[in-house]
Amino acid sequence: MLFRQLFDQETSTYTYLIADTVTQDAALVDPVLEQVERDNRLLHELNLTLNFCLETHVHADHITGTGQLRELTHCKGIVPLNAQITCANQTVSHNQVLSLGNINIRAIETNGHTDSHMSYLINGTHLLTGDALFIRGCGRTDFQQGNAGILYDRVTQRLFTLPDETLVYPGHDYRGHTVSTIGEEKCLNPRFTGRTRDQFITLMGNLNLPNPKKMMEAVPANEGCGQVALTS
Amino acid sequence: MLFRQLFDQETSTYTYLIADTVTQDAALVDPVLEQVERDNRLLHELNLTLNFCLETHVHADHITGTGQLRELTHCKGIVPLNAQITCANQTVSHNQVLSLGNINIRAIETNGHTDSHMSYLINGTHLLTGDALFIRGCGRTDFQQGNAGILYDRVTQRLFTLPDETLVYPGHDYRGHTVSTIGEEKCLNPRFTGRTRDQFITLMGNLNLPNPKKMMEAVPANEGCGQVALTS
Repeated sequence: MLFRQLFDQETSTYTYLIADTVTQDAALVDPVLEQVERDNRLLHELNLTLNFCLETHVHADHITGTGQLRELTHCKGIVPLNAQITCANQTVSHNQVLSLGNINIRAIETNGHTDSHMSYLINGTHLLTGDALFIRGCGRTDFQQGNAGILYDRVTQRLFTLPDETLVYPGHDYRGHTVSTIGEEKCLNPRFTGRTRDQFITLMGNLNLPNPKKMMEAVPANEGCGQVALTS
Repeated sequence: MLFRQLFDQETSTYTYLIADTVTQDAALVDPVLEQVERDNRLLHELNLTLNFCLETHVHADHITGTGQLRELTHCKGIVPLNAQITCANQTVSHNQVLSLGNINIRAIETNGHTDSHMSYLINGTHLLTGDALFIRGCGRTDFQQGNAGILYDRVTQRLFTLPDETLVYPGHDYRGHTVSTIGEEKCLNPRFTGRTRDQFITLMGNLNLPNPKKMMEAVPANEGCGQVALTS
């Protein structure tokens, strides 16, 4: 398996390139519009065929690159079941396994940051957590039908029950961390460790964060597979 | 082995944390002054003992965190032989192997970006290339006694002769790439691929880059193990 973590500095977003190095089948998870040229060049350089782009959720802080990549490569756009993205080619539901050559990608419904969010477990070892679980943090729950109680349940019951050595690759990091493990986050995540569900809900309700700068633009654009930006 | 890539957004610098998970011995390669608190916290969280900080070279674009980390943890500061860093505890020379628990770190002299630069090969698989080799690029050669001809020789003769699958972890990346391989860089690096030594020298001589913003501050600070900043 080829596994590449890619970073967008402006929005501190991680995109992931996964490929079967035998069949050359590839997928991108959470591509960023401004990085489409970089990502498409990398696919070409490595002689990979982009089968699909996969979203963890409808992002509020950046516009997806899926629309442009679909035009450039004829890949599919796959999104979580119930995400309000009518232009997607396919949805993926909880526990569904996607195949990419000989790689398997299991979707784990981890709602709470938004009301339709999937984490993706690659070959049982690499967990892409989107905005459900960050390294020593988690995504906010105060817009897009977020729900702190549901996020607590999903993270503690569906992610923290995976083996300790599972690698945690988040959708963002703002402090320069690139990877963690389930074992680490269970013990060291200040949002979850030692907190009850009620304490977590109180904490998340008191964050008082400003809205993401790109939110008004990004949410409708992402509901259209990033196509809004394509027409500009 | 625990291997963590850490990023400083302001200077696009990668720091590497390497540790033997049995003995808990750890090393940091190219720590950044502004990230000392983050890196020291991570050492504590993972219950690691920082044996040494290792520099690839005297940086011109950021101040090393070694001085502060040495005060906080009593680690050693190890620098390339001939680097003008008189406050270091130890130097490392070409082909010398440093031990970190059961991990071995082999220094490979890769001068050219500066006149004293080491790459470090960790357990034969992870190559930390500092500013000698970037992903699809390389460090500039127009100050600090840089020499494009020497850089060409070192990269093509000492790095590109390693196995194709060797993982390349650079000292910086400005486009969001995190890792590459020797096989990829041999085929896809626009600075080196298909270029003769003379062509490379001409290319590097015509880059006309501005000096790094922090250069006048960083070079003398790094020659003093970052201690200059400590006294401010």
